[in-house]
Amino acid sequence: MQKNKKIIFNVNKEKNFSEWFSEIVKKAELADLRYNVKGFVVFQPWSVLAMEKMYKYLEDVLQRKKHKPYFFPTVIPEKNFELEAAHVKGFTPQVFWVTYGGDKKLTEKLALRPTSETAFYQMFSYWVRSYKDLPFKTYQRANVFRYETKATRPFLRSREFHWIEAHCVHDSLESAEKQVKEDMETTKEVLHDIFGLPFIFFERPSWDKFPGALRTFAADALNPDGRVIQQPSTHILQQDFAKAFNIKFKDKDGKEKYVFLTCYGPAISRIFASVIIVHGDNKGLKFPWKIAPLQVIIIPATYDNEIIKKTMEIKKLLIKEGLSVEIDFDKEKRFGEKFYFWEMKGVPLRIEVGKKELSEKMLTIYRRDLDKKKKIKEKELLSYIKRFSKEYDENLIKKADNLFKERIIDVKSKKEIEKAVMLGKIARCDFCSLDKEGEKCAEFIEKKIGAEVRGRRVDRKEEPKGKCIICNKKAKEVVYIARSY
Amino acid sequence: MQKNKKIIFNVNKEKNFSEWFSEIVKKAELADLRYNVKGFVVFQPWSVLAMEKMYKYLEDVLQRKKHKPYFFPTVIPEKNFELEAAHVKGFTPQVFWVTYGGDKKLTEKLALRPTSETAFYQMFSYWVRSYKDLPFKTYQRANVFRYETKATRPFLRSREFHWIEAHCVHDSLESAEKQVKEDMETTKEVLHDIFGLPFIFFERPSWDKFPGALRTFAADALNPDGRVIQQPSTHILQQDFAKAFNIKFKDKDGKEKYVFLTCYGPAISRIFASVIIVHGDNKGLKFPWKIAPLQVIIIPATYDNEIIKKTMEIKKLLIKEGLSVEIDFDKEKRFGEKFYFWEMKGVPLRIEVGKKELSEKMLTIYRRDLDKKKKIKEKELLSYIKRFSKEYDENLIKKADNLFKERIIDVKSKKEIEKAVMLGKIARCDFCSLDKEGEKCAEFIEKKIGAEVRGRRVDRKEEPKGKCIICNKKAKEVVYIARSY
Repeated sequence: MQKNKKIIFNVNKEKNFSEWFSEIVKKAELADLRYNVKGFVVFQPWSVLAMEKMYKYLEDVLQRKKHKPYFFPTVIPEKNFELEAAHVKGFTPQVFWVTYGGDKKLTEKLALRPTSETAFYQMFSYWVRSYKDLPFKTYQRANVFRYETKATRPFLRSREFHWIEAHCVHDSLESAEKQVKEDMETTKEVLHDIFGLPFIFFERPSWDKFPGALRTFAADALNPDGRVIQQPSTHILQQDFAKAFNIKFKDKDGKEKYVFLTCYGPAISRIFASVIIVHGDNKGLKFPWKIAPLQVIIIPATYDNEIIKKTMEIKKLLIKEGLSVEIDFDKEKRFGEKFYFWEMKGVPLRIEVGKKELSEKMLTIYRRDLDKKKKIKEKELLSYIKRFSKEYDENLIKKADNLFKERIIDVKSKKEIEKAVMLGKIARCDFCSLDKEGEKCAEFIEKKIGAEVRGRRVDRKEEPKGKCIICNKKAKEVVYIARSY
Repeated sequence: MQKNKKIIFNVNKEKNFSEWFSEIVKKAELADLRYNVKGFVVFQPWSVLAMEKMYKYLEDVLQRKKHKPYFFPTVIPEKNFELEAAHVKGFTPQVFWVTYGGDKKLTEKLALRPTSETAFYQMFSYWVRSYKDLPFKTYQRANVFRYETKATRPFLRSREFHWIEAHCVHDSLESAEKQVKEDMETTKEVLHDIFGLPFIFFERPSWDKFPGALRTFAADALNPDGRVIQQPSTHILQQDFAKAFNIKFKDKDGKEKYVFLTCYGPAISRIFASVIIVHGDNKGLKFPWKIAPLQVIIIPATYDNEIIKKTMEIKKLLIKEGLSVEIDFDKEKRFGEKFYFWEMKGVPLRIEVGKKELSEKMLTIYRRDLDKKKKIKEKELLSYIKRFSKEYDENLIKKADNLFKERIIDVKSKKEIEKAVMLGKIARCDFCSLDKEGEKCAEFIEKKIGAEVRGRRVDRKEEPKGKCIICNKKAKEVVYIARSY
């Protein structure tokens, strides 16, 4: 680990969110922005260790739900890419193209995958034959590339990012619908219950769907500046794709039919951004227990043999329990400096061992969730950690959930939308329609208020009671409006 | 999993190795070669599951040895790439170039990394300041790209492959030497002791070093056709690199000095090729226990409730022990067909449950290592598996080691080299020199015999007793000669 001389982190997250984010990325050594290709960053160990754990949780659930893992090529030939009209329109402006191999011009341009539908689908046409093969559930862990023209920010939006993409083949629309529901449950099970992220799944308006999708469902998380950030999305695709790639199956009735396709894309590096943003505070990071790059830091008060021995004994004990633990032996840092450093790094639990602790057979414990110290009996350490780790995550989740809920506010007029989003809220209101006919009202909101109609929420049915807040026609929907990135 | 109608695999591996390899890749669904970009393949679940386990073992050891994980960008700007002359000469003919983002021509060409020295090194120049930072040990799990002009084969050589690259910064040549030694130990600990692969580490001749290396050490494994295949290599680089990228540190004496650099590259997808090749037999794959995509397959003899219930009970018991287990419920396959299928797939242990087993409270066990069945008491299953898993790996390793050792043969003349490599052996002999002066003799061997001087072995000192087998000058080395891919 690199030495940081100035380690006291103190930026007001609520007031200066943008500065807070930039500073914590730098101070905690999450990503280095000095790599010399615009929009590309180096992910440093502290983020990679957490992201690897995040991958594991997501992949374990996907595998339990019978998705099989693949590694597809990073490059997709131009011709695949152009088979589906909406897809090519949506993605082509963002594609990086490989045109040379050595000094030879390639006979066909190769896209660096911005997403891999067009890679998977040509293979699905070989692999799927019968209704017995369906649903055919796949995924890959991959890095993808988008030539973003908007400003990039580490983890939030960069030209290369790390994600999982799950692609499934179905024999019916019902099976596809079941799949997107399962994807939303997976998102809750992992992103909320393990990573502690609150979000709402919205069905997106017709004008804001994934290129080529019939229906798009996307989770919106929230930043302290009131902007929502899209987290995993899952899509039922138009059958155009199946037709373009000729993916057919023999159904029970003996007839050849085109399949239905769904795709689901949790972007690990962007989910990591939300983990930083949602849980962090003015002192720095605060990692959920299960994905913390380091769960326990042990700090000896002095370098006496007895104390060193005790810290090593504790480390050994905890490592045996499968925890990630380090001892901070750095003699160039003062005791207190170390506290600030590891608090900034977001380590959930600190154990301090000094002479007093030794003589009392006690340990001083600092909890990052409550920002509090207490003493515990040394022999109770394991049972304490067992209770603590559960409580700690519950605290993080509860706090995040409450903050999120407070941000949702009902509005009755354009002025109230404006005021709500100015205050960093998500505005809920009646709205004419999420089909084509509602697009004008959404455009009005975007142009005049600088906010977006995010869609109808999926987890519960909300009935509009009155008229569209913009056009005054009868409302068919209750929608959520927020600023986004 | 896909249905395979023809599941009896029977290709003679020793006689028709090339056919055997192509067939097993196809039948076991390891990789699909029909992807429509030349030299790129789709890695299928059966290989990905094993490769993920292989990644985990390697990464765990690297992290234990204090390497920190990074994710670097996949693209490297042309100017980095051209800073070190030998490197650019060695790699440029193999680079894929990204030249467009959307329809905009990029101001600078971007290389798809063929390896990432030139990406890591520019960042090392920011990160390394003092001798206290050293050794600075990093690695990344990554996919890399090489525009191969030789014929590609799945896993063995393809235009995109999956590897780990570890890059380290040192304050002295001694520290660099210590590092390559450690890398060779890591290779033994994981590739031999866990994956069961025999190999010899050679220091490569001066004319066969990594582009830009001072010294190159590379492991050679062996295929049944007598060709060696290079597995992980580790290199001490020329200080040119440190100078080109301006990587300096302040030493204890207060002086600024250039660092020493080492790099180590285990290619997971190619190591996987050796796992297939070394352990497989005429019936198909044979996976080492710890990296088997599936460790235990349970096959019910009939679909009676009682039997189904028993298989599920066993599955639950084994899963609780952390094993990977499936039950084959496929009603379209006959009992015997299932045996062949899972033997071909390389599953170490099969458990058969029928009425007889049920009434006797016994289980029929099939071991893939011995290709034998036996009965065990049901209640002894766990203790049996515990013993079995250890024995099984030992059997695989012993068999592989013996075959490897048998292949090394001492030769005394050009004719004997020729005969040895024709018989698929590795020829050992006295040789003039591995420096520049020996290159002509090596060229002779390559042109006239079609074999290569692989270098001097590293694990033991071998003293030449006579003259160079080619030029008749006094021999300074004992070398190994073999055909390669």
